[in-house]
Amino acid sequence: MSSGSDLKTLFERKKELIDEYLRETLSKKEIPDILAQSIAYSLLDGGKRVRPALCVITAESLGVEPSRVLPLAAAIEMVHTASLIHDDLPCMDNDDYRRGKLTNHKVYGEAMAVLAGDSLLAFAFEISLNELPKQGFSQSHILRALGILSNATGPSGICGGQALDITQVYNEEFLWKMSELKTATLLRASLTAPAALVGVDEQTMSCLHNYGTHMGISFQIVDDILDVTGTITELGKTPGKDEASGKVTFVSFYGLQKAKELALNEARKAVKAIAPLSEEFKVFTEIVECLARRSK
Amino acid sequence: MSSGSDLKTLFERKKELIDEYLRETLSKKEIPDILAQSIAYSLLDGGKRVRPALCVITAESLGVEPSRVLPLAAAIEMVHTASLIHDDLPCMDNDDYRRGKLTNHKVYGEAMAVLAGDSLLAFAFEISLNELPKQGFSQSHILRALGILSNATGPSGICGGQALDITQVYNEEFLWKMSELKTATLLRASLTAPAALVGVDEQTMSCLHNYGTHMGISFQIVDDILDVTGTITELGKTPGKDEASGKVTFVSFYGLQKAKELALNEARKAVKAIAPLSEEFKVFTEIVECLARRSK
Repeated sequence: MSSGSDLKTLFERKKELIDEYLRETLSKKEIPDILAQSIAYSLLDGGKRVRPALCVITAESLGVEPSRVLPLAAAIEMVHTASLIHDDLPCMDNDDYRRGKLTNHKVYGEAMAVLAGDSLLAFAFEISLNELPKQGFSQSHILRALGILSNATGPSGICGGQALDITQVYNEEFLWKMSELKTATLLRASLTAPAALVGVDEQTMSCLHNYGTHMGISFQIVDDILDVTGTITELGKTPGKDEASGKVTFVSFYGLQKAKELALNEARKAVKAIAPLSEEFKVFTEIVECLARRSK
Repeated sequence: MSSGSDLKTLFERKKELIDEYLRETLSKKEIPDILAQSIAYSLLDGGKRVRPALCVITAESLGVEPSRVLPLAAAIEMVHTASLIHDDLPCMDNDDYRRGKLTNHKVYGEAMAVLAGDSLLAFAFEISLNELPKQGFSQSHILRALGILSNATGPSGICGGQALDITQVYNEEFLWKMSELKTATLLRASLTAPAALVGVDEQTMSCLHNYGTHMGISFQIVDDILDVTGTITELGKTPGKDEASGKVTFVSFYGLQKAKELALNEARKAVKAIAPLSEEFKVFTEIVECLARRSK
């Protein structure tokens, strides 16, 4: 891996794999029509697929064929999409646009949007519980990997983070805790869950865990920065929402310049965390630096 | 098991076990305060615990200690509670009362109610993925049991059923399909998931599956009847909602008398389905008859 454009190509290839698997998986499932449409609208809408791509790249770095971890990668993307659908609801962030088009509830109504999110949360576990055993992973590794995913999803993960986001306490500790739960847990699980599935040793797991935490926080800081500096075309969603709603963000708390420094600093900590790992993990150094410099 | 009052005692004992396990499980989990309160409000609120009790009784009928299946029983109740919280939302059935008190969103707001439901869906899998392996079940049986639970939860289960409930097509096939998805899948999973966990043979599984389907439909028919004949004190929720909202129900479609016959007929089919099973399963004959005669 030698440049940002190689990395872009790598992510685009993973995105193709993942998009195809998600499309196939959804088409094979018997779902009442209108619910199937609402789910497909948000799941197959051309998101960046950062999380499932991280899952696939982690597996590859551990010598495992991408196709074998696709059920887990798909599950991670389903959980992420569920959280986006619910976060956009009028009672939450009340967003009209997401990934460059109308949000789910604007098209299918709030009730169907709630159910599409719920469906994706359950389907994530259904698909991985049914499909991962067919890929020859050890059953205890499957249980551990899904334990990590469920933890990252639930009240100690993104749900807990979103609850903090709603409560909004204006202090530093709160800001970091919220970002860890809301954003870092699932990004981290995108590395640690496939690592558990493959059955890595505890030292590797610990390196990936720490990398995932810092990478995830860096990702959230950049998200906060882009909300201020980005355009609706770049972001695919309405910018300036955080500021308008008076939310505590890394930018509102530290200012733009300091936030940029913090994002890079977290990226550096992430790089340091995986230094003990083998050559195959060097790609993650570029990934976190690239994510820290992204403009959408 | 010789009378309805013995059965009542049996269910009350299971309820105590389950309530205690749910309380303990929730108190041990690190969750942001307000979210923890919202979850506890609905999860620890004195529901009848029909589904987890069925799970525990199934395990007992198969010679397994109740305590060993409590994580699965708790998971089933978490999924059920999540579906109630979301079904009560203003964008869904817009209910103000549930189990005799204000609904979750009336107390904690819609956003927190959405998150409490999401949290419970994920926590159901987290608790069972983490705790069931400690109870000495085979890992492949755990995977199968949770596969059944996730299927009953997702787009081919209660989420799909609720989506049909929203769409509302006034015909017979639709009514039965909606009731199977919305109600029978999770009640059925309350028997088939613990049976898979214990590792029963396919014939036993098939008997329990068929029993669960008919018992579940019978349960829904009685729910529809009680919505017309029950009082708010008996039901703990506002009666007459279905009729007021013009919903297709077994009562609106067939009339009260015919609906009562159908409920008993489904109960009879359920009894017939488990006739081939051993003496230990005779309790399920009484259970379905008792559920078909319930007044709340």
